[in-house]
Amino acid sequence: MIIVKVGGGRDINWDYVCGDLGTLLDKEKIILVHGASAKRNEIAKKLRAPTKYLTSPSGQKSVYTNKEALEILTMVYAGLVNKKVVAKLQKNGVNAVGLSGVDGRIWEGKRKKHLISVEGGRQKLIKNTYTGRINRVNSKLIETLLESGYLPVITQPALSREGELINTDNDLNIAVMAGALQVKKIVVLFEASGFLKNLNDEKSVVKKITKEKLPSLMNNAKGTMKKKVLGAIEALENGVEIIYWGDGRVKNPIKKALAGKGTVIK
Amino acid sequence: MIIVKVGGGRDINWDYVCGDLGTLLDKEKIILVHGASAKRNEIAKKLRAPTKYLTSPSGQKSVYTNKEALEILTMVYAGLVNKKVVAKLQKNGVNAVGLSGVDGRIWEGKRKKHLISVEGGRQKLIKNTYTGRINRVNSKLIETLLESGYLPVITQPALSREGELINTDNDLNIAVMAGALQVKKIVVLFEASGFLKNLNDEKSVVKKITKEKLPSLMNNAKGTMKKKVLGAIEALENGVEIIYWGDGRVKNPIKKALAGKGTVIK
Repeated sequence: MIIVKVGGGRDINWDYVCGDLGTLLDKEKIILVHGASAKRNEIAKKLRAPTKYLTSPSGQKSVYTNKEALEILTMVYAGLVNKKVVAKLQKNGVNAVGLSGVDGRIWEGKRKKHLISVEGGRQKLIKNTYTGRINRVNSKLIETLLESGYLPVITQPALSREGELINTDNDLNIAVMAGALQVKKIVVLFEASGFLKNLNDEKSVVKKITKEKLPSLMNNAKGTMKKKVLGAIEALENGVEIIYWGDGRVKNPIKKALAGKGTVIK
Repeated sequence: MIIVKVGGGRDINWDYVCGDLGTLLDKEKIILVHGASAKRNEIAKKLRAPTKYLTSPSGQKSVYTNKEALEILTMVYAGLVNKKVVAKLQKNGVNAVGLSGVDGRIWEGKRKKHLISVEGGRQKLIKNTYTGRINRVNSKLIETLLESGYLPVITQPALSREGELINTDNDLNIAVMAGALQVKKIVVLFEASGFLKNLNDEKSVVKKITKEKLPSLMNNAKGTMKKKVLGAIEALENGVEIIYWGDGRVKNPIKKALAGKGTVIK
C-alpha cells in the first residue's frame, strides 16, 4: 500500500497525476491525500478575506485559521478541489471516493484554540484559531473502501474530539496515517524536482537522504519544505521504510518519483 | 431503509435534524440527502456572482449553472455544508460519511449543455450550462457504507458520463436512488409545516394526498414545491410506497414527519 500526497500548488499537473494513478492501481493499493492552498488563496482573496500567516516562536510558518478562513478552507479543499480531482480520476477509469478527515472521523485530533505568533520581533497571543494536530486515525473507513476497490482521496479539514472542524497539516497527517495503516511507502509530490541543495537550481536535487541526516535538512529547508521534513521524520518513526519526494508538474510524476528521479529518503 | 432529504433553506434547524437522526438509526438504516441553496446564494453574492435563475418553457424555475456557478455550488454543497452536517452528526454520535454524487459515481447522469429560458415572453438559448439529470445510481458505495454502519450524507454535484460535474435536482435524485436501492419510505423536510392549501396559512396543511391526486398539485405548487411534487410522482413510480413531507424547523422533525404531522403521500 502506498500513500501518495500531492501538494496544493498552482503548477501541479493533475492530468498527469490522475493518469499515473490509473495505471498504478493494478499493482498496488493507493491512498491519495491532497492539498489546495493555491486555489484556497485565490478564493479567499475573491471573498476579501485573504489568507494570513503566523510565525511560531520556533520559526514555523502556518496559516492563520479563524472561523472565516476555516470555512473557506472547507469549501475549497473538501469541496471544489476534492470533487474536481475525483471527477478527473473517474474520467481516467479510477473509482475514486473523495473524503475529508471529518468523514468517518478519519482524522481525529486536538484543536489548538490559541497560538503564539511572532510579529515584528514580539510574541502575540492569537485567539480562536481552528488549527490542530491529529493524534488518531480511524482506519476502518479507509480499509473498507480499499477492500471494495475504491481509491480514497482525502483532504482537509480534520475533526476535533469535540466535533469541530480543524485545519491540520497534511504532511503530519500522512505520517500518522501511515503508522495506523502500516504503510511502508510514501510518495510526496510538489512543485520542484526534489529536495534542492540550492533553491534556485532545479538540478541541485539531493538524490538520497538517510534517516539520520534528515533532521539536519531543517536548516536548509524553506517555507513548506520544513513541514515536509518534519512529516518525513515522523513517518519514518511510525514505521515507514521509504519516502519519495518528486515533481508534481511532470508527466508520470508518481512513477518517476518511485524510480528515484527525485529525492529518496530511507 | 429510509431516504431523508433535507432542503437547503436558511431556517432548517440542523441541530434538530441531526439529533433526530442519532436516535432513529437504532431502528432503521438511513441515507441523508441535503441541499445548501441559502448558503450557496450567500457565498455567490459575496463572490460577486449572485445566483441567477432560468424559467423553462413549461414554467419550471431552475438555477442558471454556468462554470462559475458550478464551482460555487461544489464548494458550498460538497464542501462547507456537507462537512458541517457530518461534523454535527459525529457530535451526535452518528458515524456519518459525507459524499457528493461524484464520489464512487453515486449519481451518474446526462449533462444538458444548452437550455431554453423564457425571458420577457421570449425564448432564449442558454449555452454552456452544467446542469443535468441523473439516470443511473451506482448503489455499491452506499450499500458498502450502510453495511459497515456508516450514515451516507449525499449532496450535489453529480457526474456526467463524460466525467463532468453537473448540477442536478435532489428531488429527482432521491426518486431515482429509491428505485435503485428499493427504498419504500422517503422523508422530505423543508421550511413549511407540510403542503399548504394556502401558502400564507401554515395551518392549511393537506394531511393526506393519494398517488392519483398528486399530479393535480402541480397547479397549486409554487417555486421549489413544483420540484417536490415531480420528485414525489417519480418516486412513487419507482416503487416508493410512502412519502412524508415535514417541517425542518421544528424539534424532532423526522419523527414528527413519520408520525404524520405534515403531509403524507401514498
